[in-house]
Amino acid sequence: MIIDLRSDTVTKPTKAMLEVMMQANVGDDVFREDPTVNELESRIATMFDKDSALFFPSGTMANQTALKLHTNPGDQVICDKYAHIYNYESGGASFNSGISCKLIDGNRGMFKADQVLEAINPDAYYYSKTSLVEIENTTNKGGGACWDFNEILKIKNVCDTNKLGFHLDGARLWNTLVAKQETTKQYGEVFDTISVCLSKSLGCPIGSVLVGNTQIMENAIRIRKIFGGNMRQAGYLAAAGLYALDNHVERLKEDHKKAKEIGNVLAKLAIVKNVELIETNIVIFELNNDVSETHFVQNLANKNIYIISMGGGKLRMVTHLDYTDTMHERLLYTLLKI
Amino acid sequence: MIIDLRSDTVTKPTKAMLEVMMQANVGDDVFREDPTVNELESRIATMFDKDSALFFPSGTMANQTALKLHTNPGDQVICDKYAHIYNYESGGASFNSGISCKLIDGNRGMFKADQVLEAINPDAYYYSKTSLVEIENTTNKGGGACWDFNEILKIKNVCDTNKLGFHLDGARLWNTLVAKQETTKQYGEVFDTISVCLSKSLGCPIGSVLVGNTQIMENAIRIRKIFGGNMRQAGYLAAAGLYALDNHVERLKEDHKKAKEIGNVLAKLAIVKNVELIETNIVIFELNNDVSETHFVQNLANKNIYIISMGGGKLRMVTHLDYTDTMHERLLYTLLKI
Amino acid sequence: MIIDLRSDTVTKPTKAMLEVMMQANVGDDVFREDPTVNELESRIATMFDKDSALFFPSGTMANQTALKLHTNPGDQVICDKYAHIYNYESGGASFNSGISCKLIDGNRGMFKADQVLEAINPDAYYYSKTSLVEIENTTNKGGGACWDFNEILKIKNVCDTNKLGFHLDGARLWNTLVAKQETTKQYGEVFDTISVCLSKSLGCPIGSVLVGNTQIMENAIRIRKIFGGNMRQAGYLAAAGLYALDNHVERLKEDHKKAKEIGNVLAKLAIVKNVELIETNIVIFELNNDVSETHFVQNLANKNIYIISMGGGKLRMVTHLDYTDTMHERLLYTLLKI
Amino acid sequence: MIIDLRSDTVTKPTKAMLEVMMQANVGDDVFREDPTVNELESRIATMFDKDSALFFPSGTMANQTALKLHTNPGDQVICDKYAHIYNYESGGASFNSGISCKLIDGNRGMFKADQVLEAINPDAYYYSKTSLVEIENTTNKGGGACWDFNEILKIKNVCDTNKLGFHLDGARLWNTLVAKQETTKQYGEVFDTISVCLSKSLGCPIGSVLVGNTQIMENAIRIRKIFGGNMRQAGYLAAAGLYALDNHVERLKEDHKKAKEIGNVLAKLAIVKNVELIETNIVIFELNNDVSETHFVQNLANKNIYIISMGGGKLRMVTHLDYTDTMHERLLYTLLKI
Repeated sequence: MIIDLRSDTVTKPTKAMLEVMMQANVGDDVFREDPTVNELESRIATMFDKDSALFFPSGTMANQTALKLHTNPGDQVICDKYAHIYNYESGGASFNSGISCKLIDGNRGMFKADQVLEAINPDAYYYSKTSLVEIENTTNKGGGACWDFNEILKIKNVCDTNKLGFHLDGARLWNTLVAKQETTKQYGEVFDTISVCLSKSLGCPIGSVLVGNTQIMENAIRIRKIFGGNMRQAGYLAAAGLYALDNHVERLKEDHKKAKEIGNVLAKLAIVKNVELIETNIVIFELNNDVSETHFVQNLANKNIYIISMGGGKLRMVTHLDYTDTMHERLLYTLLKI
Repeated sequence: MIIDLRSDTVTKPTKAMLEVMMQANVGDDVFREDPTVNELESRIATMFDKDSALFFPSGTMANQTALKLHTNPGDQVICDKYAHIYNYESGGASFNSGISCKLIDGNRGMFKADQVLEAINPDAYYYSKTSLVEIENTTNKGGGACWDFNEILKIKNVCDTNKLGFHLDGARLWNTLVAKQETTKQYGEVFDTISVCLSKSLGCPIGSVLVGNTQIMENAIRIRKIFGGNMRQAGYLAAAGLYALDNHVERLKEDHKKAKEIGNVLAKLAIVKNVELIETNIVIFELNNDVSETHFVQNLANKNIYIISMGGGKLRMVTHLDYTDTMHERLLYTLLKI
Repeated sequence: MIIDLRSDTVTKPTKAMLEVMMQANVGDDVFREDPTVNELESRIATMFDKDSALFFPSGTMANQTALKLHTNPGDQVICDKYAHIYNYESGGASFNSGISCKLIDGNRGMFKADQVLEAINPDAYYYSKTSLVEIENTTNKGGGACWDFNEILKIKNVCDTNKLGFHLDGARLWNTLVAKQETTKQYGEVFDTISVCLSKSLGCPIGSVLVGNTQIMENAIRIRKIFGGNMRQAGYLAAAGLYALDNHVERLKEDHKKAKEIGNVLAKLAIVKNVELIETNIVIFELNNDVSETHFVQNLANKNIYIISMGGGKLRMVTHLDYTDTMHERLLYTLLKI
Repeated sequence: MIIDLRSDTVTKPTKAMLEVMMQANVGDDVFREDPTVNELESRIATMFDKDSALFFPSGTMANQTALKLHTNPGDQVICDKYAHIYNYESGGASFNSGISCKLIDGNRGMFKADQVLEAINPDAYYYSKTSLVEIENTTNKGGGACWDFNEILKIKNVCDTNKLGFHLDGARLWNTLVAKQETTKQYGEVFDTISVCLSKSLGCPIGSVLVGNTQIMENAIRIRKIFGGNMRQAGYLAAAGLYALDNHVERLKEDHKKAKEIGNVLAKLAIVKNVELIETNIVIFELNNDVSETHFVQNLANKNIYIISMGGGKLRMVTHLDYTDTMHERLLYTLLKI
């Protein structure tokens, strides 16, 4: 038994999902004729009460497209120092859109409306033009933290006053919605664009979706084509998405519960210095200074338990669809014995 | 019965292909752990005798990545005025790589080594720097034309003498190989990078592969990530590719045969002015000046036969895996009656 | 005595111009406080009946800024195959703006409204978006040819109908105005942006100016800053421009007259195959096939007469402010003896 | 009498400098035939013991060119959070080169080798690639602070070990050299590229120079052309540079002395909370919380004394060539009376 807690991206489709995929009705999406893709896009647009949705081969491409839709070369996007678009998209914001990030030193990947206000550049031609605010919910590098929706509303207010776009990287938005009992419509009302991932928490093999209203989304298909993200019979992938929306959202509670249980066990261990607050399916913790991180990770790997280092002394475990009760028992048992 | 001859991209996986797909052994390809993707990449690299291969969600992305690997912003790539990278990739060469195309006025999408030589800019700082030659084989806009391999060798020679990269857009290379009994190794020896499509002629739902040696391919995975082309459990798509390589290459002969038969029938029609030379699975023809192109296309559409206009008075039909013998009889019969 | 006919860019300020420069009232133009720069900009804006003008260190930067103001990355600009922006700006259009040129095969650098219409890409997401038409008047590579103003009006009409910007590279617009007795206001009315050069025909050491209305010019200063074209006490250069506008425009007639006289002499020479129509200050001619171009250029150089090759068998001479009557006599005499 | 302490960029050429300028021997620098430009470039290259130097219309363009020479799109450059390239170049790093800045939270614009080491991204394809370290000496936003040369050497060591380029923004390097009795050769030995400004401390109207060895500088002229920074008879500007190198370097001591004297007076004022350490010609200070910054600046302006706010409660005065002894007396007197 291999216990892979490196990420919730490692999940494989369930048998039921695979069957749905296999029976998907497909067409050539470059001609916009794949009925299953169209259905998924339509469904997700409706969920967020937005005009338009577009399917992407990855969350990175959905985010990169959103950045391009909101900005012109030379502009600046305000985001947290932990932001995925800054840290884990290979410098794509600058490569693809010619923009840079103005980083806010937030708390577990989250910041305040006041900090946004301070981060806006003065309106003079020798400054980069601030044109977008981006947040991630839940925050990946922040340990699956969920934003306070009231703070989001305050930031929206700053965006409106300063004519800034507002994009949500919802790679793990489903986890927030379940954890905080919030709704997609709530988010659709506040953000100009939202990317949601079908792979991470929902267990699909491939796919993300970007939603927004017509004006901003008009060019999305062109940008996707420019990146090479237009696929042919993508309905097989979209079918998995439709299935997951029906079957894999509510069950995220279980992942969250397990994550908290892991956290509780870790907190008890003598070698663990700190466990960050666990709100969803991500567990971030630090070892005591005298304990070798590499040795700890390797030790678990020898027991077929895989976790990763986030750098800076932080280790991460992520619970997911393929992390079963049996694995959970085994993990907790192993940790307690460590 | 719908007869869709607009493109060979409209094919859907056969039952056998679907079964192979659904049984694929998959993993997270972002971690490079999808065994089926790895197998496909390894197999195609070997076929072309290259060090390295990388799977892409589209031929556009494989080409755009190759352009980036070969050039720096401001550079120029020499290609035919019919080139897909110039005409049908949304201006991506300039958007993604900051480069432009120097167009050669070729014959059916093909040109001569002498023309390449003339198209190279002088070595002065106020000219764009020429750094790459790109050809397409077969040529799409040129009507599925196959290059003379000797001319390719001459062009390679010009590339070497002038330190230019040489990229092959092999969206329909399989058709050339079958039509001219050439080998992948032959092409691998000449080109620095080659993109091949698994979707168009081979019938896979999604996917292209870029091959090249280590030095040039080293950054390919980074560029793919920047575009957002890294997918998770892509093995389902790769499995289709492996199946197609085993089962759908040789059968292209049938597509070619049918295309020629369509051409013969068209040539006999009074309303047809010209049928271009048919070498593979693409039929390009023109109607007499007094015949309405729109009316002709619509007339066929009313009979559930779909073809497209290429602009400039040219109409196109493309034969493919889903174009059956029955459809073929029906089409020929319909054309003769028109 | 050195006779330098390679370009009208080789001129040095006259004594009177230098004196005016030396007495210029200057300030820090980065703070927009250089009164002489402000005066020049204001004067040229008024001449063209435009809201706004901006001083640039080169015509290339004025053009590159205009391209950026009119386009988004991935777009296409329609221009002649001889266009300076395509041929002699180092691929800057793609480097700086991520755009490409759609070349029209014009006549001496000039084309027809019908050709523009044909060059506009269809409105589909896989085509590059056409957003700008650019012309050059006079045409440099076209031999100083002057556009028919009626054709310009027709092209303007195509631009309006298709929502395309219209930019004039007026590197040698002064020559056109004098040769055809046209006015700056006439041009200001038709074009969205116009760059004019103070160096080439007018004899200033450095400087070009871009004009346009507020909406399009709003970002010009930001783009200029991004390129690094903001200078400090630029008033010394602007003063030369003001002087030249007063003193060096009408005298262009003399340059044109001399150019025609050179053409007449060349036309009589046995070794000359062809002299292109001479409308302004540029003489382009070809030698008979059996005469070595290199030898001819070198032979003149040995006599301290410098001309350049334009490639493709074409040679160029350009008359200018520093090309005196004495030099003219000497040149004609030398040519007749050749 | 107007006392302008907003920046050392506001200086106007002295009479002697103007005379030298107007007698300059010039040519067309686009053809590389301006003898005075060539002399200046050659002299500065020699001063730094580098192969090559290139004249630019601004320090921004010299820096932006250096960034491009050292990086590929998507890369990251490590610099201080106060860096001019990050704060005051309009987002040009991302616009022109497609790169982003990784900011170090330094002290007065200066950081440690250890901080560089930490700022280098891991070598994985989903991170932006770190390729350059950039420092500014003296630091502008850091209040004219001078780097410890030993720390520079340590950083160089980190660059070498990690194959990073090392660029110096020497906008006010002359001030450092004079203040710390260091040499150009010392700096030339350590940095791959150095930009130096002729305008700020040296009093020229326009111009910066970039130096480096052949390999890195080879493309500099092409990049300058792409930005539109190639000028024609630039010798007038270069002549000022040559004059300034002979006459305006040593005198910087006086500017430094005056700056310290201003600082001493400010430190005594009841309304002043803090005066930053003054090492060269920049004075940065803060007022007590109960004193209105705007009112203070306006109050001085009413007395024809101009200073600027740097944001965040910091005010700046910069001494320079045009700030005379009389002005100095007047300023000190005014401050003491405030």
